[in-house]
Amino acid sequence: MTKAVVLLSGGLDSATTLAIANSRGYECHALSVDYGQRHRSELVAAAKLAQSIGAREHKIVKVDLTLFGGSVLTQKSRAVPVGGIKAGIPVTYVPARNTIMLSLALAWAEVLESSDIFLGVNAIDYSGYPDCRPEYIAAFERMANLATKRSVEGARLSVRAPLIALSKAEIIQQGALLSVDYSLTVSCYQADESGLACGVCDACRIRRTGFQAAGMPDPTRYQFAPVAC
Amino acid sequence: MTKAVVLLSGGLDSATTLAIANSRGYECHALSVDYGQRHRSELVAAAKLAQSIGAREHKIVKVDLTLFGGSVLTQKSRAVPVGGIKAGIPVTYVPARNTIMLSLALAWAEVLESSDIFLGVNAIDYSGYPDCRPEYIAAFERMANLATKRSVEGARLSVRAPLIALSKAEIIQQGALLSVDYSLTVSCYQADESGLACGVCDACRIRRTGFQAAGMPDPTRYQFAPVAC
Repeated sequence: MTKAVVLLSGGLDSATTLAIANSRGYECHALSVDYGQRHRSELVAAAKLAQSIGAREHKIVKVDLTLFGGSVLTQKSRAVPVGGIKAGIPVTYVPARNTIMLSLALAWAEVLESSDIFLGVNAIDYSGYPDCRPEYIAAFERMANLATKRSVEGARLSVRAPLIALSKAEIIQQGALLSVDYSLTVSCYQADESGLACGVCDACRIRRTGFQAAGMPDPTRYQFAPVAC
Repeated sequence: MTKAVVLLSGGLDSATTLAIANSRGYECHALSVDYGQRHRSELVAAAKLAQSIGAREHKIVKVDLTLFGGSVLTQKSRAVPVGGIKAGIPVTYVPARNTIMLSLALAWAEVLESSDIFLGVNAIDYSGYPDCRPEYIAAFERMANLATKRSVEGARLSVRAPLIALSKAEIIQQGALLSVDYSLTVSCYQADESGLACGVCDACRIRRTGFQAAGMPDPTRYQFAPVAC
């Protein structure tokens, strides 16, 4: 089987991405990054999803980005915005996060002799993060193809972002067709330790609107009854 | 003062790079990565060098690349080659190491609002690592300029590799002019915990030949009397 490294945060998008990679016949090696995010429940969710969807193995790499800060997700003293989605790049943006995660995936892919990295970025219903855009992904792929011993030996690495042009509703519909159990996923920026979502951060709002637009029941477990989007 | 992030391994090249950045008037923020290398003495050396050369601060980020392996530097069960430098990319190559380190530097640079990352790579007297080549550095820089919030806001990031076209002898001569204390540096792949070098690995050989070619005494502290290069 052809091996793929799949970045798996434990959220809805990366779970769907893992299911897509799996459905395409890849032997999936799921990678999560413990970067000092506000809660560990998304990492717990990632482990459950890797098993549920059928990854061959799941690794969690620890990189303490709280050392740098620069985001409400890596600085617990700052509050996650809950007042609704605003224009511009939000304060939940984590400097260079996808570059760091893709770099780690690149390392593992080379060791596995894998030519495919899957990443669940999406540039439609997203938070405006620059490292989710197609031009960024293409530039990472070009760099990766100059970075490794395998690239020098002629192997080509592809960074696959199968959700990049899908709406959140389309992502959910695709995942549902692939039997993804979305009740296992945690998207909330400030979920509690048992994975209950706040219902009011941007990630919760985008997710809930997605289930509504997909015409599907929202299986998210909330801390409180959610407000309207 | 203009801020720069300087990747500092504790070896000869990165120490010289830090001294160059410092001499150019940058406020230097030195970054070392504890990636599971065979010994910690290069990290101890990095801390001493940051202070000796005058970095504003020094951080060590931990990323456990032994989780992936794929190199004799991250797999202690494998032996470091000591028989002399061979053609091709050696087994000391660590998959995606420079990409991971530059990604971490990119994160810190964004938080510091710095537009300059310094990296001590060299493509002349080097071990043939693909992620030391000018075309790789240029591709990383292009990617970085699409990756961050700062890049979207119009700030341009430069990856500066001032040693890239210098011989090892030229690097040492330049460092000597800048008063780098090379006795503090540790280049050896398998130095002992007190920083004593083996004298026979590729890194030791390239370094010793460099001091000879520069016509300078070699201040390296060896475990044994070194063999001829």
